[in-house]
Amino acid sequence: MIDDRLARAALSRLTEPGQLRVTNAVAQAGAQRVYEEVVVAGAGLAGDAAPRLADLDPAAELERAAQQRIRFVVPGDDEWPTQLDDLSHSEPVQEMGGCPLGLWVRGPLRLDEVQDAVAVVGARASTTYGDGVARDIAAGVGRAGRCVISGAAFGIDQAAHRGALAVDGPTLAVLACGVDRAYPAAHHDLLARIAEVGAVASEVPPGCAPLRLRFLSRNRIIAALSRGTVVVEAALRSGALNTASWATSLSRPLMGVPGPVTSAQSQGVHERIGSGAATLVTRADDVLEILGGAGEHLQADPRGPERARDRLSRRHHQVLDAVPVHRPAGLASIAATAGIDLRATQTALAYLAERDFVRQLPTGWRLGERAATKVPGVAE
Amino acid sequence: MIDDRLARAALSRLTEPGQLRVTNAVAQAGAQRVYEEVVVAGAGLAGDAAPRLADLDPAAELERAAQQRIRFVVPGDDEWPTQLDDLSHSEPVQEMGGCPLGLWVRGPLRLDEVQDAVAVVGARASTTYGDGVARDIAAGVGRAGRCVISGAAFGIDQAAHRGALAVDGPTLAVLACGVDRAYPAAHHDLLARIAEVGAVASEVPPGCAPLRLRFLSRNRIIAALSRGTVVVEAALRSGALNTASWATSLSRPLMGVPGPVTSAQSQGVHERIGSGAATLVTRADDVLEILGGAGEHLQADPRGPERARDRLSRRHHQVLDAVPVHRPAGLASIAATAGIDLRATQTALAYLAERDFVRQLPTGWRLGERAATKVPGVAE
Repeated sequence: MIDDRLARAALSRLTEPGQLRVTNAVAQAGAQRVYEEVVVAGAGLAGDAAPRLADLDPAAELERAAQQRIRFVVPGDDEWPTQLDDLSHSEPVQEMGGCPLGLWVRGPLRLDEVQDAVAVVGARASTTYGDGVARDIAAGVGRAGRCVISGAAFGIDQAAHRGALAVDGPTLAVLACGVDRAYPAAHHDLLARIAEVGAVASEVPPGCAPLRLRFLSRNRIIAALSRGTVVVEAALRSGALNTASWATSLSRPLMGVPGPVTSAQSQGVHERIGSGAATLVTRADDVLEILGGAGEHLQADPRGPERARDRLSRRHHQVLDAVPVHRPAGLASIAATAGIDLRATQTALAYLAERDFVRQLPTGWRLGERAATKVPGVAE
Repeated sequence: MIDDRLARAALSRLTEPGQLRVTNAVAQAGAQRVYEEVVVAGAGLAGDAAPRLADLDPAAELERAAQQRIRFVVPGDDEWPTQLDDLSHSEPVQEMGGCPLGLWVRGPLRLDEVQDAVAVVGARASTTYGDGVARDIAAGVGRAGRCVISGAAFGIDQAAHRGALAVDGPTLAVLACGVDRAYPAAHHDLLARIAEVGAVASEVPPGCAPLRLRFLSRNRIIAALSRGTVVVEAALRSGALNTASWATSLSRPLMGVPGPVTSAQSQGVHERIGSGAATLVTRADDVLEILGGAGEHLQADPRGPERARDRLSRRHHQVLDAVPVHRPAGLASIAATAGIDLRATQTALAYLAERDFVRQLPTGWRLGERAATKVPGVAE
């Protein structure tokens, strides 16, 4: 009987990725049994596989791949990223799903070392704004030593990979075509660089073209390899939302970066945040806090600069508010304006004067140096 | 004994708004008892009130107000907006709270007619983007016949009022100063217009200045008068976040409009959305859906335009993906690429050809007019 790895390589060539009847059959009967059924008995999935049977030679294929420094990682291998196994239990998305038969991989990054990876994905037709945010977030994720996973597409994907590369962070590109192909062609150099320092992986064997449905099955791999998925920009029909749905299906955190509501590229993200499916994030620290172990990445609450006034009591505030900016006022007038009795007003004024919030002049009290001189109103 | 309205007018003059010891005392003992205690017995809150006692004449004050077409609306009046009563039970925010003693009102809009109002508030230092979104949302709220409540401040507030006015929608400005004053002065005409067709209201009596703490007490009135509050832009220390906290304290829906994460003016809003305190909204329809009665404002799901391809089955998709754009391919080649058996591929091709997705040429099949000719990849 053909061994498991060869059976998986053969099925990877014979069948389209992510098809439930294939992945379910393999999950239930094992790759070897499914292979026997299709290739030897000509039953089960054999009909669809028939047109591809002629050229089938999994042993030669694995050898050719090895010559191109492409390895085929399958369940049970040391390098197998076990988080992918969650795909066996998650709900299908757009009639696709299941654990991949294996992953064809090029590059030094080991897949079992991307356990705490973050997917950063988004629109191909991204904006300059989106590209910048994707790069920043990916750089922050990379600086934290976590792998940035994306799809090497135009727009957000490439910005994410570049952000990680810029800080020498690990990055993994998961493709919808064979890992020996550069798609899109304009990303030939980018993919070469990723394969040099990180890794390029795919569920489909070398040589395969990036067919439309393969992007959908590819997206589930991106989501399943990652601890969480960040969508930076996505129009209402963006493929990135498919990756988002996979994160949700896998019960992994889905995060979205907001943008102007006037930008079509942010509509899909806003829709997911608005519906509660995604959590709003604005920077890498938000992402790390959501994904991090307890307290690992606890960030300081984003607050404005503390002002001297903030440390005053309510009553001191009330008196300070009643002191004129320029023309000095007498004690009685200030007390009336503040709505506080005379003695308490006097005590407060003394306290405020000591701290340079107010100044006492021969004609009365006016604001001191430390008090904001702007017109009244709550701090903006 | 002085009547309830006079007692409230007097206390409104003697005390600062939103102070818990005042609002609690009135809630427990009634305005008349609190008035007696302060003014007649010189006990309780008398110390703070003393500096203002000299000029006290509530009857004259109400008469003067009436001459200026300012009315004093108190609990029990037909015009009293009963939703304010929720302030008696809500948690204090920044040590303030409680039901107002009454509202001084100028303008034809009756306060009891703003039961389904929407507060639209935000940064004074707003961006052009924020102003535009505030105006659009307010216009949409106004078109739905609902009152837009805001604070008439620079920035988002004024944009909200103007958006409502532009569609002849009802609008109410709640001020931190007396309703006879124009604050900010640059909004003199805007406030005059609002008082002409809507209303201007305040908890503090005519003549009072807009002191800093009065903005905080004012904010609770804006939130409490409204069915829900929309924050359009708010830096991390924006006063609009105080209004937001009031909406939360009152258990009323808090909504936030996102913006670029690179914009300081959106940071405060993003923080509230990210923490789950606010729901992300992008347009008036979102707001109306969240606030509307069941099904009243149910909006169509925002989806991209449906494409011809969307109605194809998974198998048809798979075959279509395998058909070359230009150079025709034979049946066997298409079946192999698609990973579908020959007969099923042929059936699918016939189906697709009938619908102009593919064309059969003497040398094989190629894409037809209806198929997108773009490179493979998930729709963007």
